[in-house]
Amino acid sequence: MTDTLLDRLAFFLATDALKDIGRANHTFAGGRPETVAEHTWHVTLLAMLLEDAAPEGTNHHHVRDLLTIHDLVEVYAGDTVIWDAAPGDADDRERAAGERLMRLLPPDQVARFDRLWREFQAQETVEAHFARAVDALHPMLMSWGPGGAGHPRADLTRRRVLERKRPLLAGFPALWELACTIVASAVDRGLLRDGGAEGTHDGGRRTGP
Amino acid sequence: MTDTLLDRLAFFLATDALKDIGRANHTFAGGRPETVAEHTWHVTLLAMLLEDAAPEGTNHHHVRDLLTIHDLVEVYAGDTVIWDAAPGDADDRERAAGERLMRLLPPDQVARFDRLWREFQAQETVEAHFARAVDALHPMLMSWGPGGAGHPRADLTRRRVLERKRPLLAGFPALWELACTIVASAVDRGLLRDGGAEGTHDGGRRTGP
Repeated sequence: MTDTLLDRLAFFLATDALKDIGRANHTFAGGRPETVAEHTWHVTLLAMLLEDAAPEGTNHHHVRDLLTIHDLVEVYAGDTVIWDAAPGDADDRERAAGERLMRLLPPDQVARFDRLWREFQAQETVEAHFARAVDALHPMLMSWGPGGAGHPRADLTRRRVLERKRPLLAGFPALWELACTIVASAVDRGLLRDGGAEGTHDGGRRTGP
Repeated sequence: MTDTLLDRLAFFLATDALKDIGRANHTFAGGRPETVAEHTWHVTLLAMLLEDAAPEGTNHHHVRDLLTIHDLVEVYAGDTVIWDAAPGDADDRERAAGERLMRLLPPDQVARFDRLWREFQAQETVEAHFARAVDALHPMLMSWGPGGAGHPRADLTRRRVLERKRPLLAGFPALWELACTIVASAVDRGLLRDGGAEGTHDGGRRTGP
């Protein structure tokens, strides 16, 4: 050890703020915004549960490491609600927040956390893609899956949800199929407005006998 | 896949209850009980940060898997506050809760989660020991580390804390040293009562130059 463990606690202390940042979706039982800290644990567990939806050879331990740290920059950048944000909207803010957070770590600890965070942001490895896909699926399950009570935002429609989620999920057919099933069921249960045809997107709600 | 992903969601749904179970210690910023879900993420991150306090050869990915699932049985068993519980108090309740929870998983998913949970309970591998040690350290840092505001229970003393934590931490000297430093500093800051000599336990607060 080239630093003492005590030197690492400034970083540990700062990350506690994720317990005080609420997300757009609610918890199942509590009917209150899920905290980012809770989401981070739950999405890690979900990735463990859905491993076989990723291609063979995916390093699932690495997926879970990416998920454990993927929202740390929200300590300073806050949570970006995708339904409000333009693509790329949060990028600069999150980059600055990431650099600020990494400065809390002793030099011999920075490289590893920085590398994980940059890998998740860059989205160039299958592990980063899968981590991002499960991250995108998690709030869908919370809002519209079994036990979900809908999303607090009433302006969402099936079409809008699937258009936004498709680029993140369609690379993993089993996840995309699950997402489409959940969303179709939510429309049937009156938890999500239909919002018209899906245009060129496949995998949406099927009608017919 | 021998089940559909949808079949696994009953388990996922049940685990959400960890977001509604409060622990004895408070969060840093919020001044409210930390939820078990939040603790689970934060202790996983802490284990990542303190890896070099474990012996060489420790499988740290496995440590983090154990931590991700270590409190799942609290979904049905609730959180056991160690300051109230007799040793072994929660064992039967947690065993029954674990069996109930595992029944929510499709057969091809049970073995893996069950094995992880039993390994953590049995405390026979270095990974299970280290996971339990970091789990024991986490609330100490939350209450008495930098940024901590003390523990909600005013009846705790330095002596009682160190006696209870020593068997869990002393096998990892760097963790035990950190724990003793934190506790001594908390006494100095008036966050923890001294509670007299530590008897036969070493590693406590040192006085004198």
